[in-house]
Amino acid sequence: MDQNDLIWEKVDSETGPHLGILDVRFDYLRHPQSQKVLKRLVLESVDWINVVALNPEGKSIMVEQYRFGIEACTLETPGGMVDPGERPLDAAKRELLEETGYGGGTWSYLGAVQPNPAFHNHLCHHFLARDVVRRADQDLGAGEAIRLRFCTLTEMKQAMAEGSLTHVLALSALSRVFQMWDVPFEPE
Amino acid sequence: MDQNDLIWEKVDSETGPHLGILDVRFDYLRHPQSQKVLKRLVLESVDWINVVALNPEGKSIMVEQYRFGIEACTLETPGGMVDPGERPLDAAKRELLEETGYGGGTWSYLGAVQPNPAFHNHLCHHFLARDVVRRADQDLGAGEAIRLRFCTLTEMKQAMAEGSLTHVLALSALSRVFQMWDVPFEPE
Repeated sequence: MDQNDLIWEKVDSETGPHLGILDVRFDYLRHPQSQKVLKRLVLESVDWINVVALNPEGKSIMVEQYRFGIEACTLETPGGMVDPGERPLDAAKRELLEETGYGGGTWSYLGAVQPNPAFHNHLCHHFLARDVVRRADQDLGAGEAIRLRFCTLTEMKQAMAEGSLTHVLALSALSRVFQMWDVPFEPE
Repeated sequence: MDQNDLIWEKVDSETGPHLGILDVRFDYLRHPQSQKVLKRLVLESVDWINVVALNPEGKSIMVEQYRFGIEACTLETPGGMVDPGERPLDAAKRELLEETGYGGGTWSYLGAVQPNPAFHNHLCHHFLARDVVRRADQDLGAGEAIRLRFCTLTEMKQAMAEGSLTHVLALSALSRVFQMWDVPFEPE
């Protein structure tokens, strides 16, 4: 089986309901072996960003907020959605300033992940911002209520153990900066 | 601000469209400070599972498949959705056997993550299966076309660099077993 034997041909597509931050699309795709055409869900959205933001003491600036999907509070890295036409880096700087009041520092790109390529089309871009400093008050949108936390790695691991730091996109960004797990296998 | 200052009161809820593998719900929630009521999207689904499955040589059994969300092929850990009433561990063993034909071995639970608690209600449970062996042929559903790959850590890092291993839920499971990134900061 070569790469072409895995690719489904899109034979039709239709627009589904608009859900606010997401748009629904249904694609009709032909199975590469059986040739059967199946209807598949795609959730379209802009890309997301999040930031591992470290203050000069090396603490990670985290946000605590109520999350509507799980109906509970989480501890996460600051982040949000990229505005149309905005560069991911600019979105990351904007979201960090709005959610925390922190800015400046030295920024680097940590890469992007697919949150769920089975049905989401968006990416989440991870950034590292070192030596950020307080620049302003929080500037929260009408849909936000956010408390700041300044965490050591030990405190983040404690939050992971308690279940409050469980958002995979936050953990994905943090795991490129900190040793979040003691891995059982040595590199070969 | 204490924890209660972050919690939004749900004042109403309505059922939105059914999207196949997801159901849409709209909740109406009261902002804890402004008291304004906002409509928020929740995507309801069963939990997901995925498995870091290692053969006796320590290679990671991975699946390559076309993903409809990003319209491209990915390299991922085997996984899927938990059937109603099924235990996550049983779902993981079932999906590994169906997608790869491998089973047996020694299983352990690696924890669960929230794929996106902002609007998803489901979790993804990660498992490690060591010393799995070939038990059967692949038993793929009508919606699957999957190629197996047996990867060393070096090969997985190569796939990350090339952009084919970018599914955050696969990376999240793998990063509890392998050292996927060289992290810049030492633990304090």
